Amino acid sequence: MEILVARSAGFCYGVRRAIKIAEETLKNDGLSYTLGPIIHNPKVVKELCNKGLKVIDDIKKIKKGTVIIRSHGISKNEAEYLKKNQNNIKTVDTTCPFVTKARNLLEILKKERYKIFFLGDKEHPEVKGLLSYIDGDAIVFLNPDEIPDNDFKKVGLISQTTQKIELLKTSAEKLLQKSEELRIFNTICKTTFVRQKEALEMSKKVDMMIVLGGKNSSNTKKLAEICKAVQNRTYHIEEPDEIKDIDFNGVEKVGITAGASTPKEHILLLVENLKKLQI
Amino acid sequence: MEILVARSAGFCYGVRRAIKIAEETLKNDGLSYTLGPIIHNPKVVKELCNKGLKVIDDIKKIKKGTVIIRSHGISKNEAEYLKKNQNNIKTVDTTCPFVTKARNLLEILKKERYKIFFLGDKEHPEVKGLLSYIDGDAIVFLNPDEIPDNDFKKVGLISQTTQKIELLKTSAEKLLQKSEELRIFNTICKTTFVRQKEALEMSKKVDMMIVLGGKNSSNTKKLAEICKAVQNRTYHIEEPDEIKDIDFNGVEKVGITAGASTPKEHILLLVENLKKLQI
Repeated sequence: MEILVARSAGFCYGVRRAIKIAEETLKNDGLSYTLGPIIHNPKVVKELCNKGLKVIDDIKKIKKGTVIIRSHGISKNEAEYLKKNQNNIKTVDTTCPFVTKARNLLEILKKERYKIFFLGDKEHPEVKGLLSYIDGDAIVFLNPDEIPDNDFKKVGLISQTTQKIELLKTSAEKLLQKSEELRIFNTICKTTFVRQKEALEMSKKVDMMIVLGGKNSSNTKKLAEICKAVQNRTYHIEEPDEIKDIDFNGVEKVGITAGASTPKEHILLLVENLKKLQI
Repeated sequence: MEILVARSAGFCYGVRRAIKIAEETLKNDGLSYTLGPIIHNPKVVKELCNKGLKVIDDIKKIKKGTVIIRSHGISKNEAEYLKKNQNNIKTVDTTCPFVTKARNLLEILKKERYKIFFLGDKEHPEVKGLLSYIDGDAIVFLNPDEIPDNDFKKVGLISQTTQKIELLKTSAEKLLQKSEELRIFNTICKTTFVRQKEALEMSKKVDMMIVLGGKNSSNTKKLAEICKAVQNRTYHIEEPDEIKDIDFNGVEKVGITAGASTPKEHILLLVENLKKLQI
């Protein structure tokens, strides 16, 4: 069985940066807190927890110590709490720069009175954080069919950093004929765009695709959706050893891609496990 | 033979307004000049010429008298010439308000340093006039395939008022994945949009489409293209009597639409001519 690994698989710039900062902080400060998992990969988070990271679910539980803001960012209220308590709480910010950029652009749209359409998952921490900066004043949707049939004067369209470009295009098309002005900030990060494109191309050339990454990771789920659309034999697994449950019958060529929060070592381990199958 | 006439066929608001102003001006001032035909319908222009209108090709030939600015507008230089000579030349402006609006939006894009993409025909007087206000600083294209393959930071997309919405959508799609920001002003006028939509739907229901209007009229040519795409038996005629050259063999249902510069009387005459065929 031939094994192909996507060049773009694994850690993105934002995740690599977040982990590096977190590891340095844990080395210097010891016990540190994050609000929710620092990245969406349970295995990586567990490794960091072994080094002193503690994941909490409510910022107000922290009265003193070090707080590491995770790659997805935090809400305006949470940021204000940390600022108010800066004498007792040290804040280390690992928010992905692409998320910060999206926040600034969202604030511009709000300030300039655009009707804001936000392509994203309203339950995702990145989206929750971003929306808090505009008081939730946006129509959040995951499917362009959800866009209402009204006419608008000034429309702003923006996206969660890990969404699919095709969805952004369809949304733009739909909004264009309903609005006098449509201002689109393409906030899908370049790495996501390249990774999705490569995954799509690879899926067409292989007999099976394996997508490795957190089941709670937005970008990994999107990758799996993209592969599944053209390659029915697509499996989204979180751990390299999950391949034991997959039927490789008739597979001559398998493709591997991985989400932005998946470390290189996990990908290499998956390759090793596949080689051991001796197909 | 059943004859269907599109509700949206014929004069649009801008054309009706231009002719009304021109007729009033000719009544009050007598001999008046326009730079190029006031609307793109030779028959209507001829009628106005009989009432005292004179079509010229260079504004500088006018040293005194009344100048009627046609519905497509004029260039910045021409406007400046008229202003400079306002003591001798009276100016009556019939520029379509949708063209004026597009001009203002174009100037905003230029001022805010967007890379401007202009969907339109660079030889059309509306486009020539509009571009003069931004010193021609735009990439003008008629086919989205002409959009270069570069990456851009801030892109502005705008359109001639009589273009096809589908082309604007395709252009937006193409530009979206190349730019960090894409700001689209949908300057296709509502009447054009509705007329094109109705023409498309009617073309599917009939055995033949007749599009009536000036051969030099951008919006009429677009209408004919839209009909032709789904109804092979589409004829773009300028005069109602041109139907004598058309083969109506097997036609049970004929659809009629007409450009924005086509008077109601011409459409009624066409209907009469078709009835006389007794098919």
